Amino acid sequence: MARNKYPEETIELILDVAYRLFIEQGYEHTSIQSIINRLGGLSKGAIYHHFKSKEDILTAVVDRITYESNKLLAKIRDSSDLNGREKLKMIFKESINRPVQDEIFAAAPNFHNNPKLFSSLLNDTIKEVAPNYIQPIIEQGIADGSIQTDYPQQLAEIIILVANVWMNPMTFDDTKEKLYGKIMVFKQMMQGFGLDIIDEELTDRIQELAAIYQKKK
Amino acid sequence: MARNKYPEETIELILDVAYRLFIEQGYEHTSIQSIINRLGGLSKGAIYHHFKSKEDILTAVVDRITYESNKLLAKIRDSSDLNGREKLKMIFKESINRPVQDEIFAAAPNFHNNPKLFSSLLNDTIKEVAPNYIQPIIEQGIADGSIQTDYPQQLAEIIILVANVWMNPMTFDDTKEKLYGKIMVFKQMMQGFGLDIIDEELTDRIQELAAIYQKKK
Repeated sequence: MARNKYPEETIELILDVAYRLFIEQGYEHTSIQSIINRLGGLSKGAIYHHFKSKEDILTAVVDRITYESNKLLAKIRDSSDLNGREKLKMIFKESINRPVQDEIFAAAPNFHNNPKLFSSLLNDTIKEVAPNYIQPIIEQGIADGSIQTDYPQQLAEIIILVANVWMNPMTFDDTKEKLYGKIMVFKQMMQGFGLDIIDEELTDRIQELAAIYQKKK
Repeated sequence: MARNKYPEETIELILDVAYRLFIEQGYEHTSIQSIINRLGGLSKGAIYHHFKSKEDILTAVVDRITYESNKLLAKIRDSSDLNGREKLKMIFKESINRPVQDEIFAAAPNFHNNPKLFSSLLNDTIKEVAPNYIQPIIEQGIADGSIQTDYPQQLAEIIILVANVWMNPMTFDDTKEKLYGKIMVFKQMMQGFGLDIIDEELTDRIQELAAIYQKKK
């Protein structure tokens, strides 16, 4: 086989196919061979040239999902015209309004049948998103007086865990009514932390995503 | 092989060995054969007589872990001399004070390297513990005026998710200092829901369990 002149494109293609298979049939039930079968013409050697193992491919898939999202979070975190509390609100609003969210929810991955993918995303939420994006914003909020807490690290974690995992329609497959109650309880939790930032626009958008998910599932 | 006169004991033995192996080397890396190897003398047929698959064994292991705990939760839920809020406090206190907790924490299973076990326990928390034990107590609290919420189902879930998963030293492997901050944030969250039930005794005991875990890990 001729040497590939476009390794970037090969990698993207492998990740496209792997992502689709992980979602369709679960990480556990996807073999490297089944990824190759869908790549028509690519050799096993070519895959192993780029990835050491299936787990390595999973990591790259998750990194790619989170890359765009993290770029947006960084932009809000580093903006200079908002206080900490306003940035936190902006994060919820912007994250959930990205058009790519419609795509992800329409693909309807079921995390419960996909423990490895779920575990990777949970780990990313707690080990990457919380300390690198949410915690710095809470620390800015403490400094500018818009957020009160003695535990910015832990507050960042609990907020993002509840928002990204518990309220994620893909994790627990909730009905529209049940999800509405979750949003209300989350709103009350945030108010308990002095953060009254969950408004009607956000509530509507979360329910809209849940509806997309339910329809395509 | 002679017919086993004590199938109950065989099942208990299989679950003992499987539990230990799942914890030691992870569910994903434990084969039925490696369970048999540790059972000295038991045939593959004897295992398959009791369990259809490795996943079946995992379910039974998780059921056994949660059985004792659920019995205790039921006893508190059905007691007649406490109001809803007092029962909720009692649940935290009694659950965490059981001596078996020391054993579990000393075994130090690492959920992050064990996504399937983690996913089973998360599912059990949300699908069993929340609706069958916590939600009825919250509903009693609404009826007797000791708890205020319009969303007992969702409040039950968020409380048990944060307590059993986020504050569980086995899930995220926190330092004592970090765990202390988590307890403080959890306490504030509960206060935000009008539930001032996390006291010093509880805080001390959670930290004690974390210390046992850190030492044995």
